Amino acid sequence: MSRFDIAVIGTGPAGLEAAITAKVRNKNVLLLGSTNLSPKVEKAHTVQNYLGLPQVSGEDMQKAFSRHLESMDIVITQDRINTVYAMGSYFALQGHAGMYEADSVILACGMSAAKPFPGELENLGRGVSYCATCDGALYKGKSALVIGYSAEEEKEADFLAEMADEVIYIPMYSRETSLNEKVRVLSGVNPVSIEKKDKRVILSLKERNIETDGIFILRESVAPSQLVPGLELEKNRVVVDRKQKTNIPGLFACGDITGEPYQYIKAAGEGNVAALSAVSYLAEMKAAQAQK
Amino acid sequence: MSRFDIAVIGTGPAGLEAAITAKVRNKNVLLLGSTNLSPKVEKAHTVQNYLGLPQVSGEDMQKAFSRHLESMDIVITQDRINTVYAMGSYFALQGHAGMYEADSVILACGMSAAKPFPGELENLGRGVSYCATCDGALYKGKSALVIGYSAEEEKEADFLAEMADEVIYIPMYSRETSLNEKVRVLSGVNPVSIEKKDKRVILSLKERNIETDGIFILRESVAPSQLVPGLELEKNRVVVDRKQKTNIPGLFACGDITGEPYQYIKAAGEGNVAALSAVSYLAEMKAAQAQK
Repeated sequence: MSRFDIAVIGTGPAGLEAAITAKVRNKNVLLLGSTNLSPKVEKAHTVQNYLGLPQVSGEDMQKAFSRHLESMDIVITQDRINTVYAMGSYFALQGHAGMYEADSVILACGMSAAKPFPGELENLGRGVSYCATCDGALYKGKSALVIGYSAEEEKEADFLAEMADEVIYIPMYSRETSLNEKVRVLSGVNPVSIEKKDKRVILSLKERNIETDGIFILRESVAPSQLVPGLELEKNRVVVDRKQKTNIPGLFACGDITGEPYQYIKAAGEGNVAALSAVSYLAEMKAAQAQK
Repeated sequence: MSRFDIAVIGTGPAGLEAAITAKVRNKNVLLLGSTNLSPKVEKAHTVQNYLGLPQVSGEDMQKAFSRHLESMDIVITQDRINTVYAMGSYFALQGHAGMYEADSVILACGMSAAKPFPGELENLGRGVSYCATCDGALYKGKSALVIGYSAEEEKEADFLAEMADEVIYIPMYSRETSLNEKVRVLSGVNPVSIEKKDKRVILSLKERNIETDGIFILRESVAPSQLVPGLELEKNRVVVDRKQKTNIPGLFACGDITGEPYQYIKAAGEGNVAALSAVSYLAEMKAAQAQK
């Protein structure tokens, strides 16, 4: 597996700026996220205070960002990261599409709006999963339920249906669904909590209970507490200093994930600082290794 | 004198973004600086990592910034501030062109590259001045010497020559000077230190000494230690927290003045945060006053 200098997780303004600055500094960068960049940016009506882009629509801002990436030959690796493991001298990143390794990591994956369901975190890996691609094979001949927070998750439910005997899909959005006919869609219901029962799991809805072999919860972003074991948080935001350092050496964070204000230019500014701090960290590591 | 909600000192990316964000939040903003914005930005060759403006020249970046100000009807008050006085419930700003008052202040005046001369700070107000417009009248019938760090200072020397009997001008730049014929230009000399001698001051050059009644040192930016009495510094950079707060309530700082990295997008991001922190501060002050 090729080892990257810097892995940037997230394709909002913070992640894009971090990737650009790291590239300017000649680093081997892995930019992980969505080729559609950020749905939050795209949906913005008019942004008044991103200096240099007056009265810009979210859509035009995205276009300006895309042009910037293209002009520097930066490509996005379309994937979502579930867990970042600090291995001491490097990081291992577990994504839906694969595993990655990098000497340093920049978290720029935004604010996770959704609160975990009661029973969700307790049963993670014990019937609850965040990644159909990763864990789908375990459900061959079994039943599974998918809670999807955006239409993009439908693909994962379809994939699951190729293996599982029975798949129920609960859309947490109002847009019409378009799924494999094997998938049973359950719209307009309200998940409340999750419980383990012997080898099965029970999803309590406001309306009724559903028993199944596995529950997949597919959100745009994983809660930071879940994403990086051991990461210091304060009310669900990642604690960083003015250099965007977290409590884990080599791990930096920028943008909405570090807390308010939730502003595009603030996020971009922090992405810049995070990238330069990662560059300094890599230089220090190199110097320390040379001394050995 | 009208009292502003927020005075922003500086027209680089940090100050411009702060003014824009404060205006979006409906604050009465005084933006102090140069209508040419920032000479540092203008002279930049190509900036690669200001997200949204790919491969932009300094000149084009300035134009984008100017368009942004125009689109929001933000005007620049052309002045340089010498001192900011924290008056308790408000701030008084002493500029070359006048005095201003504001409930909160955002320092965005960049990094002062020049180190003060030995003897400069000790004799400030005792024969050394930073502002010909302010102190020129004291030199009626006397002699004065001006050390100018940019061609813009020549106007001040000309102004001084209208009152003083004798004015010597030392340009600290290579560009040809264009001054009133009464002003004697002394090019290619190197000021070393300043000394007080009875009621006169002596400027020691590497080459020789000059005795005069007053020495005016005109730099693009005043050292932060000089600008705000009582401001907490660390190696000439203003100490701020993640909300861009300084040690003085109601006073915020952003951009290069807060330290490395010296990057445009970092400066703009901090300007955004500083403005929003100032807005919060104003709301708190208002709430506290309502309770009285």
